[in-house]
Amino acid sequence: MTVPEPGLPMTVPEPGLPTRVRIHEVGARDGLQNEKSTVPTEVKAEFVRRLAEAGLTTIEATSFVHPKWVPQLADAEQLFPQVSDLAVDLPVLVPNERGLDRALALGATRVAVFASATESFAKANLNRTLDEALAMFEPVVGRAKAEGVHVRGYLSMCFGDPWEGAVPVPQVVRVCRALLDMGCDELSLGDTIGVATPGHVRALLTELDVPVEKVGVHFHDTYGQALANTYAALQHGVTTVDASAGGLGGCPYAKSATGNLATEDLVWMLQGLGIDTGVDLGRLVATSAWMAEHLGRPSPSRTVRALSHQE
Amino acid sequence: MTVPEPGLPMTVPEPGLPTRVRIHEVGARDGLQNEKSTVPTEVKAEFVRRLAEAGLTTIEATSFVHPKWVPQLADAEQLFPQVSDLAVDLPVLVPNERGLDRALALGATRVAVFASATESFAKANLNRTLDEALAMFEPVVGRAKAEGVHVRGYLSMCFGDPWEGAVPVPQVVRVCRALLDMGCDELSLGDTIGVATPGHVRALLTELDVPVEKVGVHFHDTYGQALANTYAALQHGVTTVDASAGGLGGCPYAKSATGNLATEDLVWMLQGLGIDTGVDLGRLVATSAWMAEHLGRPSPSRTVRALSHQE
Repeated sequence: MTVPEPGLPMTVPEPGLPTRVRIHEVGARDGLQNEKSTVPTEVKAEFVRRLAEAGLTTIEATSFVHPKWVPQLADAEQLFPQVSDLAVDLPVLVPNERGLDRALALGATRVAVFASATESFAKANLNRTLDEALAMFEPVVGRAKAEGVHVRGYLSMCFGDPWEGAVPVPQVVRVCRALLDMGCDELSLGDTIGVATPGHVRALLTELDVPVEKVGVHFHDTYGQALANTYAALQHGVTTVDASAGGLGGCPYAKSATGNLATEDLVWMLQGLGIDTGVDLGRLVATSAWMAEHLGRPSPSRTVRALSHQE
Repeated sequence: MTVPEPGLPMTVPEPGLPTRVRIHEVGARDGLQNEKSTVPTEVKAEFVRRLAEAGLTTIEATSFVHPKWVPQLADAEQLFPQVSDLAVDLPVLVPNERGLDRALALGATRVAVFASATESFAKANLNRTLDEALAMFEPVVGRAKAEGVHVRGYLSMCFGDPWEGAVPVPQVVRVCRALLDMGCDELSLGDTIGVATPGHVRALLTELDVPVEKVGVHFHDTYGQALANTYAALQHGVTTVDASAGGLGGCPYAKSATGNLATEDLVWMLQGLGIDTGVDLGRLVATSAWMAEHLGRPSPSRTVRALSHQE
C-alpha cells in the first residue's frame, strides 16, 4: 500500500485484475453530441487538446454523421484538422459510406460504426431492420479495412432497450459476431439506457467468448451502476473502458439518462486498484471543470465535484 | 434470466454472492442529521413509516446525541414513540451513557455507538484520544448488553481520514477488535469521506477476519465509488449494507461529500443480481421523491431521478 497524495485514493491492487487499462474517451463526441447547445469549434479543439495533455491516449474526436441528425457535430471537417497533429489515437464516428469518405479525406486512421443489438433501436435510429443495418455497415467496414483503417464497432442496447425491455444475451452475441466477421477490430458493448447490473455484464462477457483485447465496455450511469459494472468487466479481464470526461452526455432515447460513466470516477477506481491508465487526474478534473463552466452547469461526475469543489 | 417489469433491472444472479442482503437504512438518522433544515417530527415519523412500508426491515430512526451537537435530531424523545409500534428493527444512535439512558427509557432494543478508526476524528468529533473514546464506549456497550439490547458499533474513517490521509488497515482492525471485545454485536465499517476503492475494501475485509454476519459496510459516494465497493464487499460475503433512502446525508467533515450510498441504487444492483432484500423499489423511490420534495431539492440518487423523472 502506498500513502496517497491529496486528492488521490490509496492504492491497493487486487490480484487477477489487469495492470493497465486503455480508456476510450468519448466526451468530445458522445458527450457533446447530446448537449443542447452547440459548443464552438475552437472550444472543442481545446477540449480534445486538454484531454490529450491529461494523458488520455484514445480520444474520440467527432462524428461524420449528417449535420441534419447531429447539428452539434456539424463542424467535423473544421475540427478534425485542428487536432489531428496530436500524438494520440483520434477515432471518429462514421455512420455510412458517405461519412467514411469524409473521414478518409481528412486522413482519419480510426473510425467507428454504430450498430445496435435490437430491432427497435435499428428502426428508431436508422429506419432499418437489424439485418439491413448490419448490411449497411458491411461496405463501410470493408472499405475502411482495405484502407488500413482501424474499425471499432459500437453496439448499443446490449443489456436493455427502451422499447423491448431486457435484451437476450444470445441476440447480443449474434450481432457481436456479425460485426467481428465483417472485419471490426474491436467492439464496444453499450448499456445505452444504463440498466445493467454486474451479473448481467459477466453473463454477456462469458457468453461472448471473444478475446478480451477485442472487447470494450461502455456503461451509462442512469441507475448509478456504471462503475460497479466496469469493475465486473475488469474482473473478467476487459482492458478497454469507454468513459466521458466529466460524465458529459446521455442518450437521446433515454430521457432521464444521466450520461456516460465519468472518466474521473473511473480513473479514481483504477488508480485505487493500482491499474495504470496514464491519466493525470488533477489535469483531467481541471479540464472537465473548465468544460462544465463553458456549458453552464455542474459536472455530473462525483469526482469532479469533490476535487474541484463544485456543488 | 427473467424479463423485467418496467423500472426493474433484468435479474442475472452471480454464483458465489449472498442470496439475501439486509439493508441497514440510515436515511432518517445519518441522512437527516446532515440536512441544513430541521425536518418536522411528524414528517420524520411518516418517513420512517413509509420506509417500513417499502419493505425495509432495519431502519435507524434517530440519535440520542445532545441537541446542542445535532439540533436536527433534537426531537428523538418525541419521534421514537411515534414509530416504535412498527414491526421492524429500529436502532438508535447513543453517543454516551446519558444517551443510552434516554433510549432505554423509551424502550429501544437496538442501539449503535459511533467510534472512529483515527485519532484525528476522535479528537474532532469527541475531543478525546482514540483510546479515551473507546474507554467511553465500554460502559455504554456493557450496560446495553446487560439490558439485552443489540449493539452496533459504527467505525468511521476506515479507509481515509481528512486529516490523516490513508488509514492503515492494521489500525482499523485493532479498533474493530476492541469494539467486538467490549461486546458489540456487529460493526459498520464506514468510508466516511468516500475515498475507498474495491481493492482496499477487499484488503480490510480479508485482514479483519471476523464472521461476515458481524460486519456491515457503509460507503459514501463522494467519488462515485460506493456501489463498486459494495459489490466487492458482497463478493467477500458481506450481507449487511448500510444505505440512505434517496442518498440523503453527507459528512460534516467532508465538505463536498455527496452523501451516503443511495438505497435505491443499491436495491437496483441487488435486484439485478437476484439478491433478495424484501424492498419494493417503486414504493421506496416514491418515498424518496416525497422527501426530496419536502427538502426542496432533487434526490442525489440516480435511480430516484430516473424512476421519478426528477431532473
